[in-house]
Amino acid sequence: MYAVEVSDHIMIAHSFRGEVFGPAQRLHGATFAVSAAFMADALDRNGIVVDIGRAFDVLRQVLAPLNYRNLDDMPQFKSVNTTTEFLTRHVFDGLAEAVKRGELGREPGEIGAIRVTVAESPSARAWYEAALW
Amino acid sequence: MYAVEVSDHIMIAHSFRGEVFGPAQRLHGATFAVSAAFMADALDRNGIVVDIGRAFDVLRQVLAPLNYRNLDDMPQFKSVNTTTEFLTRHVFDGLAEAVKRGELGREPGEIGAIRVTVAESPSARAWYEAALW
Amino acid sequence: MYAVEVSDHIMIAHSFRGEVFGPAQRLHGATFAVSAAFMADALDRNGIVVDIGRAFDVLRQVLAPLNYRNLDDMPQFKSVNTTTEFLTRHVFDGLAEAVKRGELGREPGEIGAIRVTVAESPSARAWYEAALW
Amino acid sequence: MYAVEVSDHIMIAHSFRGEVFGPAQRLHGATFAVSAAFMADALDRNGIVVDIGRAFDVLRQVLAPLNYRNLDDMPQFKSVNTTTEFLTRHVFDGLAEAVKRGELGREPGEIGAIRVTVAESPSARAWYEAALW
Amino acid sequence: MYAVEVSDHIMIAHSFRGEVFGPAQRLHGATFAVSAAFMADALDRNGIVVDIGRAFDVLRQVLAPLNYRNLDDMPQFKSVNTTTEFLTRHVFDGLAEAVKRGELGREPGEIGAIRVTVAESPSARAWYEAALW
Amino acid sequence: MYAVEVSDHIMIAHSFRGEVFGPAQRLHGATFAVSAAFMADALDRNGIVVDIGRAFDVLRQVLAPLNYRNLDDMPQFKSVNTTTEFLTRHVFDGLAEAVKRGELGREPGEIGAIRVTVAESPSARAWYEAALW
Repeated sequence: MYAVEVSDHIMIAHSFRGEVFGPAQRLHGATFAVSAAFMADALDRNGIVVDIGRAFDVLRQVLAPLNYRNLDDMPQFKSVNTTTEFLTRHVFDGLAEAVKRGELGREPGEIGAIRVTVAESPSARAWYEAALW
Repeated sequence: MYAVEVSDHIMIAHSFRGEVFGPAQRLHGATFAVSAAFMADALDRNGIVVDIGRAFDVLRQVLAPLNYRNLDDMPQFKSVNTTTEFLTRHVFDGLAEAVKRGELGREPGEIGAIRVTVAESPSARAWYEAALW
Repeated sequence: MYAVEVSDHIMIAHSFRGEVFGPAQRLHGATFAVSAAFMADALDRNGIVVDIGRAFDVLRQVLAPLNYRNLDDMPQFKSVNTTTEFLTRHVFDGLAEAVKRGELGREPGEIGAIRVTVAESPSARAWYEAALW
Repeated sequence: MYAVEVSDHIMIAHSFRGEVFGPAQRLHGATFAVSAAFMADALDRNGIVVDIGRAFDVLRQVLAPLNYRNLDDMPQFKSVNTTTEFLTRHVFDGLAEAVKRGELGREPGEIGAIRVTVAESPSARAWYEAALW
Repeated sequence: MYAVEVSDHIMIAHSFRGEVFGPAQRLHGATFAVSAAFMADALDRNGIVVDIGRAFDVLRQVLAPLNYRNLDDMPQFKSVNTTTEFLTRHVFDGLAEAVKRGELGREPGEIGAIRVTVAESPSARAWYEAALW
Repeated sequence: MYAVEVSDHIMIAHSFRGEVFGPAQRLHGATFAVSAAFMADALDRNGIVVDIGRAFDVLRQVLAPLNYRNLDDMPQFKSVNTTTEFLTRHVFDGLAEAVKRGELGREPGEIGAIRVTVAESPSARAWYEAALW
């Protein structure tokens, strides 16, 4: 299995609901370093999984609506905690749609899985990985 | 599959038995940078795999008996080589017990697997990953 | 010249005033990875610049009032932009006071300078360095 | 499952054929940071997956013919694009042969899989992972 | 003294003349991770050394003519070895001109010095630092 | 001012005397990641500060007597604490002698200063920098 992974980052504010979060129930923020890995069983005729330039563009498009935002103010996040784990899945879903629309330059079925890793600090990170089909 | 990973480190002395180890048969030491990843199929109602604060605490508890020690002097390690690989499994076992005692704040069965990564230097590391059930 | 540097991090929300900041005028946030370097011309009789454990404690005390906070809500920051550069100086001032109160375990005059480095993302950081006397 | 991973790097020139590559169709180059992970279900009697020293030597032998080369000039690469993905597989194949010749110091069947990761920049990397048997 | 540092990277091919370079006399290449630090005694009225967005843009403009190029083919480099050290100075000169043209958004004299760091691999890097006035 | 910096690492055991060290008074160990920076006002006719290959060799020679050792057993360290700070100076002294013997391939006086940085963990490091003449 081959994978190509590209990285970018966003800077957001948010707060959490639930006693388990302790001081993180207060409005605070994070720099999230986000990596997106696209996986395929075979390379295409150019010798790539996906074009790295396209992969960067797609990741940036998925992240752009979140960047420099207070996630607490975004209607689609009103009823959830925008935890690092939650965001791995949110980015995964956006990337999966881009793959299915053919934006990565491969036949959609050729990209078998995606893994999204989000680091919130030098000592904590989360990831979500799943097959696309 | 979701994962949350937290990191800490210990500083230990030890020596190895066996010609394969060459100069590492002498008493020497290491800073081991240890990462523990907890994996789950689903997030809990707070939107997390495990609370990162609890994950740090549990990892620190498992590492504490080793920190600032000569592992050669610890009775439980008398008959083994405390290699980087061996320590990945030792930490895994401690974390697995903590999960089974419910110390991570999830129903034990909800955490499906653990991966422990131990870096011994900028250019060498080991990991152990296994399902818990 | 000797230096000892320790690192920690905080997660905050804030916004900036001024057109130069573009989208960062909106409420957003950051994980700030903060390193504090203490500099001395000579080691003490134990062979250290400062005790690393004490250095961690002092850095944590200076950072604690900021962690998991919206800096826009803190009275002392009402009239300033809490930029990365500004925070390097804020942390420097807190550390300098701790040195002058003797909390680092050296005679104050023996620590000649401090440098505080704050990374806001994998690709941008700031630092402030100055002599203490 | 246990893994041991060692890292090295090479500095090469090459160019790509295909419009998808844009400016990378021109002769350019890369520092490739290469990590090789050897995986085994069980440790040997010394408590290791493979000896780290041997793993470094084998990785270096596989990389040596590529280092400080223009890959466009190497006959075996004449008909392919030597992309980061392609190189993960090239290194994998070399390491797999070394395992099968017994050069890692384990019975060949004891090493079940290899993963080769190649970072081309701080923000892009690729990997290839496969079972050996 | 305050500093703000931003990072980018380029991928180039080149070769060196001189026996001291050994195998690096052959055409090879490198990913150069380039950091540019701008230094000032005082922050401006916005609380910054320079706008980070502008700093990224200026660094990218200086690096763009080199990216995805064989430096051996560029007329301005015909008579020199484009070593990592040489490139730190080349980038410094480009940034210094941009400062003097006022492109960083500060009065030129307010930026007192620049340091350019270029990493050629995980274990080797170079830097050039000088005052501007 | 130009600098070239190369990195290597050692794995050692040691203990400290003095209550300030707390649990580090026990025999423990460390992986020390060591970087050596050589500084010069001007490049030589090849366009380098020092040859990176020579710099690696000289650093390795200075570190070799310490690697895989219990520093407590080495006669030259009997009366000192081999702290991270102490080792920055020990390595500096070894490198300075090598420069003065002409082993770096420059006229000794052309290398004006050396900085040695030693990281003991992901969150703590020390350095020593001084002029050579």
